[in-house]
Amino acid sequence: MDAEIIAVGSELLTPHRSDTNSLYLTSKLNSLGIEVRFKTIVGDDAERLGTVFRATFERSKLIILMGGLGPTEDDINRQAVANVLGLTLHEVPEVIERIAARYARTGRTMPANNARQALVPEGADWLPNKKGTAPGIWIERDGRIIIMLPGPPHELEAMFDEQCMPRLKDRVSGSQIRTRVLKVAGLPESEVDERIAPIYKPYSNPSTTILSTGGAIEVHLSAHGATQQEADALLDELTEKIEPALGDHIFSTSGETLEEIVGMYLVMKQKTLATAESCTGGLLSERITRVPGSSEYYLGGAVCYSNELKTRFAGVSPKLLETYGAVSKPVAQALAEGIRRKVQASIGIGITGIAGPGGGTDEKPVGMVFIAVADERGTEVREFRFPGDRERIRLLSSQFALEMLRRRIRN
Amino acid sequence: MDAEIIAVGSELLTPHRSDTNSLYLTSKLNSLGIEVRFKTIVGDDAERLGTVFRATFERSKLIILMGGLGPTEDDINRQAVANVLGLTLHEVPEVIERIAARYARTGRTMPANNARQALVPEGADWLPNKKGTAPGIWIERDGRIIIMLPGPPHELEAMFDEQCMPRLKDRVSGSQIRTRVLKVAGLPESEVDERIAPIYKPYSNPSTTILSTGGAIEVHLSAHGATQQEADALLDELTEKIEPALGDHIFSTSGETLEEIVGMYLVMKQKTLATAESCTGGLLSERITRVPGSSEYYLGGAVCYSNELKTRFAGVSPKLLETYGAVSKPVAQALAEGIRRKVQASIGIGITGIAGPGGGTDEKPVGMVFIAVADERGTEVREFRFPGDRERIRLLSSQFALEMLRRRIRN
Repeated sequence: MDAEIIAVGSELLTPHRSDTNSLYLTSKLNSLGIEVRFKTIVGDDAERLGTVFRATFERSKLIILMGGLGPTEDDINRQAVANVLGLTLHEVPEVIERIAARYARTGRTMPANNARQALVPEGADWLPNKKGTAPGIWIERDGRIIIMLPGPPHELEAMFDEQCMPRLKDRVSGSQIRTRVLKVAGLPESEVDERIAPIYKPYSNPSTTILSTGGAIEVHLSAHGATQQEADALLDELTEKIEPALGDHIFSTSGETLEEIVGMYLVMKQKTLATAESCTGGLLSERITRVPGSSEYYLGGAVCYSNELKTRFAGVSPKLLETYGAVSKPVAQALAEGIRRKVQASIGIGITGIAGPGGGTDEKPVGMVFIAVADERGTEVREFRFPGDRERIRLLSSQFALEMLRRRIRN
Repeated sequence: MDAEIIAVGSELLTPHRSDTNSLYLTSKLNSLGIEVRFKTIVGDDAERLGTVFRATFERSKLIILMGGLGPTEDDINRQAVANVLGLTLHEVPEVIERIAARYARTGRTMPANNARQALVPEGADWLPNKKGTAPGIWIERDGRIIIMLPGPPHELEAMFDEQCMPRLKDRVSGSQIRTRVLKVAGLPESEVDERIAPIYKPYSNPSTTILSTGGAIEVHLSAHGATQQEADALLDELTEKIEPALGDHIFSTSGETLEEIVGMYLVMKQKTLATAESCTGGLLSERITRVPGSSEYYLGGAVCYSNELKTRFAGVSPKLLETYGAVSKPVAQALAEGIRRKVQASIGIGITGIAGPGGGTDEKPVGMVFIAVADERGTEVREFRFPGDRERIRLLSSQFALEMLRRRIRN
């Protein structure tokens, strides 16, 4: 079965927005052996959407539409699809009740226009939306499956995983696509490629793609096979060759983020953690606490933007700050050791640096960052010169702090 | 004149790659008053590309194809377009000479398959490529303009700017597109629409789109005019009608983020800020410090995940924690007042809540969040019930904290 995806929304035709939902859907569809043949992006215009949908309906067996299910007049998908298929829309009372209940739970009254979201084409199924108000729609007609999903990513992803994947699994047969992602920390993308290109180049199945994403490098392998087992065996073969070339820079092969891996180690070793951040401004603690259950090992920390707070919250002596400056190796060390002591955590992390765009000097340029990890065995401090803008320098700082922590607690 | 863009390349149909060239082209086209109506992504398959191109040729006056001009068998654009238009391809000796010269400059010999790149449909112009080997192609036929550009961004951008923009400028009759974005805080999307739909509905120019993005609601207006001034006047007219309906919920009309607006107010009023976060885990401080120069007003804060740290860093009394529980109105107030006092800031913010997925009870469900803002005039505390998952609850908490702060310092 081949699929095509239609993203609906005038904002996706501006210079400022691009469709990212289709990447998520493609990954899920591929895992079922379904390939995406076309993607189309069209504005909130019923006539143009009708034209596009009519063409897709003629050539594809599985059509997924995203967006255009909101409560406003802009939200034209329900009507446009029903028109092309010659179906009428009817209001589903249960959907209205669910939306009203959702509003009631947060102490609000449902605005009248939300009733539009309860319109479903005759003969279609509606798909409950656990994360929002708009239900999805599932239509089967003339041997085609048409799925309409809400646009917000967290709504779309939850609905597709829970409601659509099981149904699609029942429908597909034959060739399977399996993927594996090796996540790598502590190496630049070019070095990852240099190390593994000679290994993956001879293989067309699995295919290999290297991606740089949010500070981590990801090696994506994708294999076709007659069965899942066959595809998995191909992945195993190539993975076993690649792993030695990247060694312990690989921190995950099953999708975990670096903060999740670090959290698993901390739980396993029964260690607690505290942080003292300057240039990252809370990004490190924010990443650590993204992980559900992080309160088990993360006690908290300080964002010490001012020098006074470096002293008050992390016990850095004013003399040290005066002698070496806030962005220095001794201050990073003092931040890590001080926050560990004050919070009575097993491990303390300190970060200080210059994220820019201002504040750099010849001696201490933008991108200079010191990171320290302190535990009962002592303190490791490293100096970095990160490339890029403020956002990237902060991201790389948090990434290398997590990577230093991972190596520290693993040993 | 309306445009549509076709991106050709099988890699753009994988989970790992998305088309970004079209954002660049859209920005350039908009500056000429040309709107993009459709974008289609199709793999390296001559038959499928033919189907897509045939449909676009019927409905659009300007069609831009990207990619598929390389020297390999995969590069099918030249042939597929020529087939649909009933044109034959001929080899242009000058193009071959240029490609051979390019290779010679770097001491290499042109591979034989590069001659494919010199194939141009009869009657078409070829566009020199300063950054690579594949020339572009410009076809005019039946009142349509068809432009074929190479896929690599630096080749495409240079070629489009130098070769296509001047030609297109001559073709368009001066119509200009101008856009404006009103950013709204503190209202759900459906209420924003309910308030302003009666106002924007009668207008087709400007067109209006409402978007929900990262906790903020954005109202996008886009106007066409014979001149920039005319388009701006249309935007002014509609903006002046919409503004009273949303009142002071509009925090920006020139692109600033909520954290930037709050930063501008803090600088203007010469106030300093400190934060004490529990469930947001540092997200609020991270957002505040995304803004370059935030060290001027943000002193820092505490991420007090554990109760001990709520006491140590923000001076919350253990008795208060015991009596009301960590997630409570009095504790939010004590966090805000305590961090303000300890850090000696003009304003203190305290956040405590249950982000989930675990930790909720009937009395204190997941999504319950208390936010407090304390300054010299006293402390405001609000209770929220946020919908969604952990990530969304944390995001909305940080958003409403910034919005409470904005309202507080504005007055």
